[in-house]
Amino acid sequence: MNKKQLFEQIQAKKSFLCVGLDPVLENVPKHLLSFEDPIFEFNKQIIEATKDLCVAYKPNTAFYESRGLKGWESLLKTWAHIPEDIFTIADAKRGDIGNTSAMYADAFFNEEKSGMSFDAITVAPYMGKDSVGPFLKYEDKWVILLALTSNESHSDFQLFENADGKLYEEVIRVSSKWGSSDQLMYVVGATRGAEFANIRRLAPDNFLLVPGVGAQGGSLADVCEFGLNATCGLLVNSSRGIIYAGKGEDFAEKAREEALKLQQEMEIILEKSGLL
Amino acid sequence: MNKKQLFEQIQAKKSFLCVGLDPVLENVPKHLLSFEDPIFEFNKQIIEATKDLCVAYKPNTAFYESRGLKGWESLLKTWAHIPEDIFTIADAKRGDIGNTSAMYADAFFNEEKSGMSFDAITVAPYMGKDSVGPFLKYEDKWVILLALTSNESHSDFQLFENADGKLYEEVIRVSSKWGSSDQLMYVVGATRGAEFANIRRLAPDNFLLVPGVGAQGGSLADVCEFGLNATCGLLVNSSRGIIYAGKGEDFAEKAREEALKLQQEMEIILEKSGLL
Repeated sequence: MNKKQLFEQIQAKKSFLCVGLDPVLENVPKHLLSFEDPIFEFNKQIIEATKDLCVAYKPNTAFYESRGLKGWESLLKTWAHIPEDIFTIADAKRGDIGNTSAMYADAFFNEEKSGMSFDAITVAPYMGKDSVGPFLKYEDKWVILLALTSNESHSDFQLFENADGKLYEEVIRVSSKWGSSDQLMYVVGATRGAEFANIRRLAPDNFLLVPGVGAQGGSLADVCEFGLNATCGLLVNSSRGIIYAGKGEDFAEKAREEALKLQQEMEIILEKSGLL
Repeated sequence: MNKKQLFEQIQAKKSFLCVGLDPVLENVPKHLLSFEDPIFEFNKQIIEATKDLCVAYKPNTAFYESRGLKGWESLLKTWAHIPEDIFTIADAKRGDIGNTSAMYADAFFNEEKSGMSFDAITVAPYMGKDSVGPFLKYEDKWVILLALTSNESHSDFQLFENADGKLYEEVIRVSSKWGSSDQLMYVVGATRGAEFANIRRLAPDNFLLVPGVGAQGGSLADVCEFGLNATCGLLVNSSRGIIYAGKGEDFAEKAREEALKLQQEMEIILEKSGLL
């Protein structure tokens, strides 16, 4: 999916919501445990209940890998079940030397080889340009590079600073020469409200993937005040806040209610910003 | 496996060789393609031919993920086939916020959940302490943190510098407070010969995992001159140089010949350094 199509989806659905599909078996409602693949069944029902309210789904690969082979199978089935017009993000935080990153690109972008073809993958920037290049060779696919993350220990290295600025600023500055804003997004935690204005100076046209609204405590209003741009430029993710909204047989309805609340907030914000 | 046991293995085998198990189907000898799982069959024969010459095996997960479900299955079988007294490294370069890194720890350290229990996993440091902590809770398991990598674009961010030093130095300095040298290793590329003395000042007691000897052009002598410590402190990896030494039916013998050359060089080095 390219940038124009993504913005069209945002306008059509009046939403820039991304739903994080990160289920653990312990939190899956009991009535699903009799299914052959309870994790997939959970995701399937979440997708059915929220697909008109969000523009993206983001499975975090860790939650699938932790279950070994059957987890990887749930990931494949989940990817295949997401409607074609919804943006898909493999939240995999990969990154390796060039020939190895090419293998990761096969894993997440090349359906013929791996059975999956996401629109985007999250990548860790530590190894530099080599580790990102192989992903950028795919047309209408995206790299979402970690910039300023939502976790407490983001400060350990991302704020390492010299006269030119902080490391996360250097990551945005340097990497934005590797590809256009049609190929590169950045991960910026919703808990970093105050930094959004600064990030928009460095990456005016790029989409930002924003986790941390909900369970992690970030504010949608703060994010939007400085984060919106002319094509919206934000994909705001909620995982636990939506998928675990209910614990019983009505979990999908409860998930829908939480997704709807966010979509309605987003609609007001898009309307006010003249983006609809 | 703990540090003492690892050093005992190094002394017993007179080797600190790690063999990288990174096969791609295109490079697997033709006579193996009739096997149900040619990748596993390839690895199995490489392991049989080299297991007395090396102390560690390191499958890079990208090479398995690129083949989807059947690739993950080959990885599981490969892990299970490695003899118990050989150190196993999941070269996965993972790293995420705390609750997600705990899932990655399940994936690679918790056999009950995922079917695999490696001795060590490579981790990218960008997200800081949160992303490493969950792995350190496992007894006798190791985190191998990326420090100074072998690829050309390591310079993009790892050499980002302020008055306290370069980013990779900060990574070693800060992370060495998170765990002891019985739990933490660092990845330092063999192509960074000149930096080994400096790294040993920052991490005198830690093992270093050293890729880049062979196909990537690093020198074993340069690495050892400054890299050895009182418990050897080095695991030197070769992947393509060993596993693709031959292309025909004798590929495993050819692999053994290359592994033997490296083992013999290592034996001389260990002998000279008084480590045997």
